[in-house]
Amino acid sequence: MPQELSLPVPDDFHIHLRQGQDLASYAKSAEQQFGRILVMPNTEPPVNSAESVKKYKAEILAAAPSLKVLLTFKLNKNYTEQELLEMRKNGAIAAKYYPLGVTTNSQDGVSQIEDMYPTIELMEKLDLVLCLHGEEPGVFCLDREKKFLKHLEKLIRIFPKLRIVLEHVSSAEAVERVKSLPQNVAATVTVHHFILTLDDIVGDSLRPQNFCKPIPKLPKDKEVLRAAVFSGNNKFFLGTDSAPHALEKKECLCGAAGIYSAPVAIPILIEEFEKENELALLPNFIAGFGADFYKIPRQNKKVTYIKKEWQVPKIIDGAVPLRAGEVLKWDRK
Amino acid sequence: MPQELSLPVPDDFHIHLRQGQDLASYAKSAEQQFGRILVMPNTEPPVNSAESVKKYKAEILAAAPSLKVLLTFKLNKNYTEQELLEMRKNGAIAAKYYPLGVTTNSQDGVSQIEDMYPTIELMEKLDLVLCLHGEEPGVFCLDREKKFLKHLEKLIRIFPKLRIVLEHVSSAEAVERVKSLPQNVAATVTVHHFILTLDDIVGDSLRPQNFCKPIPKLPKDKEVLRAAVFSGNNKFFLGTDSAPHALEKKECLCGAAGIYSAPVAIPILIEEFEKENELALLPNFIAGFGADFYKIPRQNKKVTYIKKEWQVPKIIDGAVPLRAGEVLKWDRK
Repeated sequence: MPQELSLPVPDDFHIHLRQGQDLASYAKSAEQQFGRILVMPNTEPPVNSAESVKKYKAEILAAAPSLKVLLTFKLNKNYTEQELLEMRKNGAIAAKYYPLGVTTNSQDGVSQIEDMYPTIELMEKLDLVLCLHGEEPGVFCLDREKKFLKHLEKLIRIFPKLRIVLEHVSSAEAVERVKSLPQNVAATVTVHHFILTLDDIVGDSLRPQNFCKPIPKLPKDKEVLRAAVFSGNNKFFLGTDSAPHALEKKECLCGAAGIYSAPVAIPILIEEFEKENELALLPNFIAGFGADFYKIPRQNKKVTYIKKEWQVPKIIDGAVPLRAGEVLKWDRK
Repeated sequence: MPQELSLPVPDDFHIHLRQGQDLASYAKSAEQQFGRILVMPNTEPPVNSAESVKKYKAEILAAAPSLKVLLTFKLNKNYTEQELLEMRKNGAIAAKYYPLGVTTNSQDGVSQIEDMYPTIELMEKLDLVLCLHGEEPGVFCLDREKKFLKHLEKLIRIFPKLRIVLEHVSSAEAVERVKSLPQNVAATVTVHHFILTLDDIVGDSLRPQNFCKPIPKLPKDKEVLRAAVFSGNNKFFLGTDSAPHALEKKECLCGAAGIYSAPVAIPILIEEFEKENELALLPNFIAGFGADFYKIPRQNKKVTYIKKEWQVPKIIDGAVPLRAGEVLKWDRK
């Protein structure tokens, strides 16, 4: 009899489902892995109005009706309190901040975070969460997250009640800073930053399928990130940043940034937590701390995984998944 | 009248010309840029005998008859003094050391440099140069060169008269070490390590055309390398490591490591030395210090460049060149 593991149905507090004809397959794949997802708004055009929140949610649900879909909208400086309330009514629980040009579809990003203060003040009042892509543009790639931390500190000083998530935390400095800031500052942890370093992109042959922003960093950064998770700190919870790009975009010279991890996220995490003998911490990481932070109920449903080797397909939904072609130890029953 | 610059015909003390049908076009391109080249031996099968040295030289000269072709052979532990003498007679002036698996066609590389000591002792006696690919296998990519330096130090301690070139030096630590070691230890400097950092590979979108080994490192590494060159230190001379890969290999997921810089190397260097107001140092860097180190006469011929903008083609000889599609300021007259 293979070993079994019962887990709460996981939440993913950071996922990209794209748009158009790809959306349906990415949403269905997410539905197989997660009970609840927080969907990022960097489509083209972006999700940035009550109408677009409603429409995007309907599109996702049409493809994946059993998913609980939570929405984000792109932060800009023009929202009124009325608009924020309407977006919330339609399913949005957070705004996403993109600095100008740091990642996919961020060419309309923010150049001065200070310009956003009026909107952020309203968000604090309405208890909407601010999700930060925390990278300082124009800085050497390994320093971008570190150099962004001054903005995080300033935000929490000016808006002390604002709930902030530093998304896809990737550097030792950022992990330490999140730990030291008040309890209303948390961070999502991706599966890929949990297991990859720069070596997995440029160490041997070039591996475009592992290219993402923020760039995976040094071994010590990964170790500090893992240590935070394995300490059971409730400020660190799962947000995969699963970000499929159609195969041709990953292979071509333009080299789009983003890793498609949703289909393999939970099996990889089980394996990693098992290796560290910390499986008892996994339920809170994938289906506890995030819900608590977002002030939504923890889910009661369970899902069972079995210990059984399987090979990750080279292509899933037309995109190269994380660990493509490699053998994983756990699979959904 | 456009500005003109007369330079000695450059030497390239580290170039890859590959083999088979590609060799002719790469050799012809090199002939247009350089007067004399030192050709690396990592073909398949490798250049590792008097016969293969002779044959490889003849193939290159058939395509590029005006080039002065200097050869290397792959270091292994089986050479007799007689074989080394014969390889030298046929045109080889140096052996190339590849650690196991660190770069293109190094799967037959050396796992224990100590195994090579008998050959190296003969090389010291015969005054053959040892060219090192100085990266320690199995170490985090940004640390590989730094961690290799212990071998360099040990070699020069055991073989104090051996002439050693640390090829394509890329880290601040290695530059400083070469400076501090005796005069018979030098380093080649590539054009790409002179102008690129990790940002140019993974900073924005992924740029496979800039992927190479050793990986370009941090801004401070580049600055220390440039400072060594701009100090006029005769231990640092040009070896482009120009390493064309056919387009499909650079674009595909395997992401071959190597930059095709030969066709643009000198124009880029003129531009860079001009920016630093150090054009007077360029002749020694491209056609002086290297010849002195290798104990071959400096060349007397001159070549003229003119200040005239031109756009680097996207493809040269079927490979993506360094700075493809960008505008350079200097061109050969």
